[in-house]
Amino acid sequence: MPPRVCDADAASGPPARLGSLTAVTTRVLIRGTGLIGTSLGIALTRQGYAVSLADPSPTAERLARDLGAGELATDSDEAPDVVVVAAPPDVAADVVIDALATWPESVVTDVASVKGVVLDAARAAGGDLTRYVGSHPMAGRERSGAGHARGDLFEGRAWVVVPSPESGASAVATVTDLARSVGSAVTVMDAQTHDEAVATISHLPQVAASLVAAQLRSLDEQALGLAGQGVRDVTRIAASDPRLWTQIIAGNAGSIREVLGRVHADLGELLDALAALADPEDAVGSLEVVNRTITHGNVGHARIPGKHGAGPAAYLPVTAIVPDTPGALARLLTDVGEAGVNLEDLRIDHGLGQPFGLAEIMVVPAAAEHLQQALEAKGWRVLD
Amino acid sequence: MPPRVCDADAASGPPARLGSLTAVTTRVLIRGTGLIGTSLGIALTRQGYAVSLADPSPTAERLARDLGAGELATDSDEAPDVVVVAAPPDVAADVVIDALATWPESVVTDVASVKGVVLDAARAAGGDLTRYVGSHPMAGRERSGAGHARGDLFEGRAWVVVPSPESGASAVATVTDLARSVGSAVTVMDAQTHDEAVATISHLPQVAASLVAAQLRSLDEQALGLAGQGVRDVTRIAASDPRLWTQIIAGNAGSIREVLGRVHADLGELLDALAALADPEDAVGSLEVVNRTITHGNVGHARIPGKHGAGPAAYLPVTAIVPDTPGALARLLTDVGEAGVNLEDLRIDHGLGQPFGLAEIMVVPAAAEHLQQALEAKGWRVLD
Repeated sequence: MPPRVCDADAASGPPARLGSLTAVTTRVLIRGTGLIGTSLGIALTRQGYAVSLADPSPTAERLARDLGAGELATDSDEAPDVVVVAAPPDVAADVVIDALATWPESVVTDVASVKGVVLDAARAAGGDLTRYVGSHPMAGRERSGAGHARGDLFEGRAWVVVPSPESGASAVATVTDLARSVGSAVTVMDAQTHDEAVATISHLPQVAASLVAAQLRSLDEQALGLAGQGVRDVTRIAASDPRLWTQIIAGNAGSIREVLGRVHADLGELLDALAALADPEDAVGSLEVVNRTITHGNVGHARIPGKHGAGPAAYLPVTAIVPDTPGALARLLTDVGEAGVNLEDLRIDHGLGQPFGLAEIMVVPAAAEHLQQALEAKGWRVLD
Repeated sequence: MPPRVCDADAASGPPARLGSLTAVTTRVLIRGTGLIGTSLGIALTRQGYAVSLADPSPTAERLARDLGAGELATDSDEAPDVVVVAAPPDVAADVVIDALATWPESVVTDVASVKGVVLDAARAAGGDLTRYVGSHPMAGRERSGAGHARGDLFEGRAWVVVPSPESGASAVATVTDLARSVGSAVTVMDAQTHDEAVATISHLPQVAASLVAAQLRSLDEQALGLAGQGVRDVTRIAASDPRLWTQIIAGNAGSIREVLGRVHADLGELLDALAALADPEDAVGSLEVVNRTITHGNVGHARIPGKHGAGPAAYLPVTAIVPDTPGALARLLTDVGEAGVNLEDLRIDHGLGQPFGLAEIMVVPAAAEHLQQALEAKGWRVLD
């Protein structure tokens, strides 16, 4: 059930799929108009879907409507083709069960970050699971609420489609089409595989960032002044919403407990090694534990896919000094472009108390020397 | 003992300190020509210091010389004014002790990331500690070795000067001058304060990043494909050098053990809460523990100083879609500059399997709406 109207902006919109066009507008009911529900409403409306909105909070659903996410749902509406449950994780299951019962022909999906608890509850309630397919658009932000919604939130992000053994093939296809129509890259997993995967790739980093940041609560100002890029990167997501994350962690407690248990054991072993180092007689083997902590991190880090989902790539940095004035970084990158070099990644590193920053431009190794020379020829100070 | 020749490039070089100019060139001996020693040699040479180099590896010291870090030290050299020990942390103390004995008039500093062990060893050896002042230039990289050295490594970075109670005032002033002359912002701390501070602000994030990344070693490819910006940021420094970090962690084992012990206890409490959640009768209070884990992270994260060492600032993001072609980001930032808006920070977020990225431009709140309109007027797709 694809949308009738397709985005003409093919350059950055979803791929055109002419063969699947039909003359029927797909009706989507979004239940829950927070960040994800409202963003999805905006995106689907732009793609020509007929979107209706419902939220327990009249203020929230009207705000979503005002932001262009769709029309308010009414009792006289036709039955929707698809119901998207974008309620908070702890009520998602109840809303899915209600939706399956209320609209006996509709495909139902939900966007909760945990999938096993929703599926288990729907199954326990005896709902028609042929029409239920879970979803997890991996498009969260440090911010929440409709006010931060954006219609492009899903573009280029992973969207995990999570069928159960009961899910019908056409329901899976409908949810997959919907995810692709808002620009997401679809991955299919069963619920348990999904929950184990996100426990490690998403929930563990969140807990680690929060635990590290929590240690900064009582640190004195002078020590905080030594904060460099390392602690900033490690703790960035520690700014996340506690209400949402309490629900996510509680909803995936089993899988998270497994991976956190392994980390707890690794950390305990490291602590024993550090204690043993205080006494040279006990210290045999301790350095091996310390060294292994770092080398195992090297191995795991190297497995993270690189840009655009490709394998990890070894880019070289070309680092230039950029004065802290409007347009300076733009001039630098204009010169990078004129050198014919593609920037693979960019990191801005601000100097402590200095009126300039360092721009670390990542490029393919073959281009690094040429770029350095080209930038120096244009008068930039490039670090050796 | 400032350098005779000053850098004329005042815009981004160190502040001119005309009053302290003398006609005498300061002689600096750098012992250890890895990343830090070689980078410091290049930087000091540029500032007019007379730098000589020594390393146990003849290849390493000649490579440093070839990179412009100074001349090779010889037996007929005059005594240096300052000896900078840039040896690995586990041998720094021995080299400091040797330097204090070999040159009875020279100021001696070292650049090891841990300061208590060096000071304790020097004191135990009975060296003349009036001439010893520890240093910690916070300028490490994920890479090591002279081959990655750069003369601007210290510009805009914190450099902790670590006097002991025995340190003479002129020795402290000499080391402070040296740090400032290569562009660093000097902070003064005693050794214990320093070691406790870096245990929390630097060593804890390293261990956390390594422990999280280690869990990715055995994760399957499909789960790795869900990696988003969160896990990338949390694990970036997991790529760090195991030899160096084994020495740093072993050298600061006491302070690191304290902060890691607190994290281990917090993690244990969270694990108990997750276990209790499996049984509703036991679960009373468990959600509070989960919620507290995230809220405490919020509080700690908010204390990290913002750009340029100022207090944390609330910037607003303006996010634009950038095609993955040479020059596209430059054109975007040119348009930002022409809108008269200063870019406070920039994050590039690459779409999974998509030929474009998202550029999140952080600006002061008052400029956000104007910038969004200006960019849209130039044809950019700006997210809502």
